[in-house]
Amino acid sequence: MAGVISPSMPVWVVENSANGKRAFSSFNEGLGKVLRFGAHGHEVLERLRWMAEVLAPTLSEVLAAHGPLELKPLIAQALHMGDEGHNRNAAASSLLLKKLVPAALESTVPQAQLAQALSFVAGNDHFFLNLSMAACKAMLDAAHGIAHSSLVTAMARNGVHFGIRLSGTGDAWFEAPARPVDGLYFPGYGPQDAAADLGDSAITETAGLGGFAMAASPAIVQFVGGTPAQAIANTLSMTHITLGHNHAFTLPAINFGGTPAGIDARKVLDTGIVPIINTGIAHKDAGVGQIGAGITHAPLECFALAIGALADGMA
Amino acid sequence: MAGVISPSMPVWVVENSANGKRAFSSFNEGLGKVLRFGAHGHEVLERLRWMAEVLAPTLSEVLAAHGPLELKPLIAQALHMGDEGHNRNAAASSLLLKKLVPAALESTVPQAQLAQALSFVAGNDHFFLNLSMAACKAMLDAAHGIAHSSLVTAMARNGVHFGIRLSGTGDAWFEAPARPVDGLYFPGYGPQDAAADLGDSAITETAGLGGFAMAASPAIVQFVGGTPAQAIANTLSMTHITLGHNHAFTLPAINFGGTPAGIDARKVLDTGIVPIINTGIAHKDAGVGQIGAGITHAPLECFALAIGALADGMA
Repeated sequence: MAGVISPSMPVWVVENSANGKRAFSSFNEGLGKVLRFGAHGHEVLERLRWMAEVLAPTLSEVLAAHGPLELKPLIAQALHMGDEGHNRNAAASSLLLKKLVPAALESTVPQAQLAQALSFVAGNDHFFLNLSMAACKAMLDAAHGIAHSSLVTAMARNGVHFGIRLSGTGDAWFEAPARPVDGLYFPGYGPQDAAADLGDSAITETAGLGGFAMAASPAIVQFVGGTPAQAIANTLSMTHITLGHNHAFTLPAINFGGTPAGIDARKVLDTGIVPIINTGIAHKDAGVGQIGAGITHAPLECFALAIGALADGMA
Repeated sequence: MAGVISPSMPVWVVENSANGKRAFSSFNEGLGKVLRFGAHGHEVLERLRWMAEVLAPTLSEVLAAHGPLELKPLIAQALHMGDEGHNRNAAASSLLLKKLVPAALESTVPQAQLAQALSFVAGNDHFFLNLSMAACKAMLDAAHGIAHSSLVTAMARNGVHFGIRLSGTGDAWFEAPARPVDGLYFPGYGPQDAAADLGDSAITETAGLGGFAMAASPAIVQFVGGTPAQAIANTLSMTHITLGHNHAFTLPAINFGGTPAGIDARKVLDTGIVPIINTGIAHKDAGVGQIGAGITHAPLECFALAIGALADGMA
């Protein structure tokens, strides 16, 4: 279920209705010059201000009129419409808009304000990404804290280090150098401009979306590189390192099999197969923003460190 | 480009901007008890009345605010989002709504009226179908009337006969008995209730969508039957009977190859491969409506008759 709270930096609130726990995310600003990729110029700050003053209060009222929004069925439907839930969210963003429009038109929000807010949502095919991230965080938090469990419950990167958490090792992060991203660049940029892998969006892969669900999304290769056959191969290779499949998220191209989900750090070490991540590419210099998107991999070393710590804890 | 004209039965107006010629279609009523599948009860007539009195004038004003709507890019995008443009239009219907919402909110249509009209559009995943049909008709009409051409420019069925037209044989229709549809039934219905293949929607296959574009739409097999692998095979088999590929409509699952388009009646006769059609299933009794959806094939005999007539005309 999703709602909105609206302080100076408004956030989505995603609640796991089974346990009442919440996850949060900011609103998606779009591509290019955006704060999450390090841009912080006038247009970026203006957009953030507008989000706090117009977008968030509007969506808050619209969601109040709509009632809690169920995210899992929406994500499941988007996976049948070519999204993988990380770098392709065109379908989920459209489905979100479709849910919001009737409630918006029955709300008391003035029509001109609705026009501004809904036009922004309609114009940003990545708008759903931040809901996808928070939904994945809420799902994974439910699996965190199981004694001795080698399940990976978070993967995150800061452009320098890549870190993972395991369910059975509490709040510890196991880190290794972040890898470069192999991808496609926006016009005027190339690999020499790129920061290493960056951001907290790999929470989607941790939950079985993104690179793990690429079989659902042959069209994404036009954004991140590769071929549709490789997209299917990526999903299938991830089945070697997951504990199972999430049958709430089925992938039509592999006969409606559930997406591989639940990364087992032991399986990663045993096979040497590391998680595949679809991700945006940030410029290495602060202030520029997103300059492309591509595919990268988690560094094996994180998993070795994590399993070492798990073993130490059981010794 | 699409507009609306609104007499007692309002229609979409789709214009081929290259030659100014127009095609028309009614508004999509949804599934089940709908006029186009033979239902004509109170709820059907009430819906049609509401369409004429509320939906059509609303969309007409919204489109006036929006300006002409380009259909080919929208269809192309939907083919990257799991639609095949005949029996799956979930993406195109969402994309249409996304185009309409900003214009709607800037129009002078009262908010309550917008709420009614846009909620109907948001609630009908097949809403775009009739625009797809009219777009295909407009594209094919441009190819009609070429002397000696064996290109198929229309396929249509009335539940009894299946008919085709060729570009080179003027207004003549070449007919054979319509086939049954092999498909999935709505609860409570089965093959014993079904009419034979029926409707003018096979204009989409004639233009390379629907059954010809199934590779784009693995999820459609949950609606019409079969497997995702068969969906790809269907598209590939149609390449044997088309004059080429439409590179405006690319299919990600076959490496972004264009959909096979331009059925050549000679190739159909030479190979014995007949066009595949995804279609709805009507109840055989008037008044009931749609009872399922499935896959059927054009009868070979139509093509033999048409080629015979073409040869006679050249003798």
